[in-house]
Amino acid sequence: MADNEVFQYSIISALMDGVASHGTPIARVLEHGDHGLGTFRNMVGEMIVLDGEVYQMKADGSVVHITDPASTVTPFATVTRFRPTLQSRVTVSGKDGLEEYLTRAFPEARNHFLVVRMDGLFSKVHVRTAGGQNIPREGMVDVCARQTAHTFEREKGTIVGFRCPEYVMGINVAGIHLHFISEDRQRGGHILDLSTGAVAVDFAAAQMSRFHLELPTEDGEFNQANLKLQAQGIKAVEG
Amino acid sequence: MADNEVFQYSIISALMDGVASHGTPIARVLEHGDHGLGTFRNMVGEMIVLDGEVYQMKADGSVVHITDPASTVTPFATVTRFRPTLQSRVTVSGKDGLEEYLTRAFPEARNHFLVVRMDGLFSKVHVRTAGGQNIPREGMVDVCARQTAHTFEREKGTIVGFRCPEYVMGINVAGIHLHFISEDRQRGGHILDLSTGAVAVDFAAAQMSRFHLELPTEDGEFNQANLKLQAQGIKAVEG
Repeated sequence: MADNEVFQYSIISALMDGVASHGTPIARVLEHGDHGLGTFRNMVGEMIVLDGEVYQMKADGSVVHITDPASTVTPFATVTRFRPTLQSRVTVSGKDGLEEYLTRAFPEARNHFLVVRMDGLFSKVHVRTAGGQNIPREGMVDVCARQTAHTFEREKGTIVGFRCPEYVMGINVAGIHLHFISEDRQRGGHILDLSTGAVAVDFAAAQMSRFHLELPTEDGEFNQANLKLQAQGIKAVEG
Repeated sequence: MADNEVFQYSIISALMDGVASHGTPIARVLEHGDHGLGTFRNMVGEMIVLDGEVYQMKADGSVVHITDPASTVTPFATVTRFRPTLQSRVTVSGKDGLEEYLTRAFPEARNHFLVVRMDGLFSKVHVRTAGGQNIPREGMVDVCARQTAHTFEREKGTIVGFRCPEYVMGINVAGIHLHFISEDRQRGGHILDLSTGAVAVDFAAAQMSRFHLELPTEDGEFNQANLKLQAQGIKAVEG
């Protein structure tokens, strides 16, 4: 895989259907990308991949630096070998504000993928962290009904994520999907809302036209799952 | 790409929305596979890829062997470097019969892709061939409203196609999608119905867990298209 191509392991509909007992070693995902996001076995916490380093952001507020990616498994992850084609300084208010900026900055990307990274001081970042399944095959809607939410104010950190085209809904999350980690790598999660305030942050992004999907093999849960599109459910828990 | 991985150029929803003026050279598609199917610029005819050879099956009943794949363009194609993992002799009646056979033969493939090839004497093959767009951006439903249908009886030939999982609907065609070409390479098309009769034909197939999608770039039609899922429409014209 070349730079700025999407690599994805499994599909988001599998998480919706609670397929999270197994997965692929994170080291294998890192062969395909150095920036991205995902989750961990049994949906315990949120994953962010940043400069090739992987962090697990847990519901209790702690962050674990994954130093053994060969022996840690992910049931779902999306990454890219990120080489920004656009770098700027931006102020944004809300995911909608970011969406408007991306649409202006990448007018040819309506039906392509985008990868986004933002670094700086954010006036507000509202995140959630999933605490994990109570039982095997518990679906993501139920897992996220117990999610923990945190609001960080005047927090330095980094946002990594993607904007996926509408037609991948079910395979990935259509629209913007971002994770955040603080500069000291002590706090973070799946972004529900964000604002830079008046002071701009560093913005970097790239458009992507190649998508590589690897499906779980020899995984009874995945094979048995009824992977019907639950677009409303995905929007509710990942939008 | 290794053997038995899916390579796809563009998405079926783009054809539904009439995106067929441009594309990628077929030679580039052949780098990723030697068996598959697709269409041609302006949806003129049905494509079958067989042992690395490409044929255009046209609505007037003629078949063109594409001998200049570097200078012939496809707006949509799906191929794989096919190495059968299952070979047998089968009798099948209808797409439903084939579906039942595939489900029994590949019990672990409910949410994976399958590639299928069948060679032999078919008692009946009912095909359609799309004649092409009357105007640029004419959608596939309208194009297929003018399709030509043929029924071949006691015809020797080859079937190539895929079974795609439900969740790729819109990106590809969920379920079975097969094209046929006669042994003398003079007749063929998109299969609407098939039957081997009582005498078995050669059957070969493989399960695939990796899917590679390449999207059109610098293509205004693709960028402007509103690629909303039209599941019923896709089933109507490609199911």
